[in-house]
Amino acid sequence: MTEISTRQDVMTLVNVITVDPSRCDELLEVLVNATEETIRRVDGFVSANIHRSHDRRRVVNYAQWTTLDAFNAMRSLPQVGEHLRQAAELAESFDPITCSVVHTTS
Amino acid sequence: MTEISTRQDVMTLVNVITVDPSRCDELLEVLVNATEETIRRVDGFVSANIHRSHDRRRVVNYAQWTTLDAFNAMRSLPQVGEHLRQAAELAESFDPITCSVVHTTS
Repeated sequence: MTEISTRQDVMTLVNVITVDPSRCDELLEVLVNATEETIRRVDGFVSANIHRSHDRRRVVNYAQWTTLDAFNAMRSLPQVGEHLRQAAELAESFDPITCSVVHTTS
Repeated sequence: MTEISTRQDVMTLVNVITVDPSRCDELLEVLVNATEETIRRVDGFVSANIHRSHDRRRVVNYAQWTTLDAFNAMRSLPQVGEHLRQAAELAESFDPITCSVVHTTS
């Protein structure tokens, strides 16, 4: 379970990936496998939450890392690079946004 | 506290708003006020989680509603329209993505 809270000392990645709807499920599989096989074991990983848009044209990963440095270090690992290449072959574009939680209401 | 889980029966909105960095804080204030004064009281509201990107060029609202119909009904309420107009005056663009949680790892 992932918690969103201003009290957590984490950085947040919102990665909006655009994809042809016919390749959406394949892209989701690549991202889920990358998370389960590799990324969850990397130092600084907190959570990853993968979403499919209703029109199947976007996949959104809402992920948390302990620090921005830990997130950037993960991206340069060779074993992560292979997963990223697979995702890049399926996606039309990536828009990774690194951010902080400012306010929550629930 | 907001929980992200595949077990929840909610729809998710990821709204990526692009803004001039000099107007980022003003936009955040408008969105927080809209949520606290109006939107949290609308039928079907579950949570809203407002983020500021590190470069201050984006604001991301990760929000949950019980159903897509409830979310769409909220957008047509007159009292919400006033808040949306204020936000639209400050933002360069909006990219609201309605989606479902497919997979979580934490």
